[in-house]
Amino acid sequence: MVDYIGYLAAILGTICWLPQTLKTWRTKETKDLSLWANLLILATVMLWLIYGILLGAWPLIVANIVSILFVGAIVTAKLIYK
Amino acid sequence: MVDYIGYLAAILGTICWLPQTLKTWRTKETKDLSLWANLLILATVMLWLIYGILLGAWPLIVANIVSILFVGAIVTAKLIYK
Repeated sequence: MVDYIGYLAAILGTICWLPQTLKTWRTKETKDLSLWANLLILATVMLWLIYGILLGAWPLIVANIVSILFVGAIVTAKLIYK
Repeated sequence: MVDYIGYLAAILGTICWLPQTLKTWRTKETKDLSLWANLLILATVMLWLIYGILLGAWPLIVANIVSILFVGAIVTAKLIYK
């Protein structure tokens, strides 16, 4: 039971960025997004990826690669569409 | 060494929302923020809080209470300032 809540949190924590990524690339409007917040989030998921690689924890590795793609796309849009 | 990367990721993953929370409340502009993304992020940190409570893991509990306050403030602003 406890484990399932952890898995659900991990899955949700990976896909939660997708609506923002899609909205940002569709509208190309990034004014209200904080560059600093998104850079810190990107740094966070990169650290979790390194942590996962060092532990050999595949769920952590896969989830964080997906997160890096989603959050990286938001940061890229923020830098391109000022 | 591996543990320290985990701690750093956990701390960064808690404070990373703060720049967005401050920006959103300062500007009162939320048009470019995805309500769905922020609701999913809020659901994620609530699940991690429940997970932490069930495990009795205090770092997880404290970190996620702080995250809920930061992300909750973003969701509240998004709902108030359409």
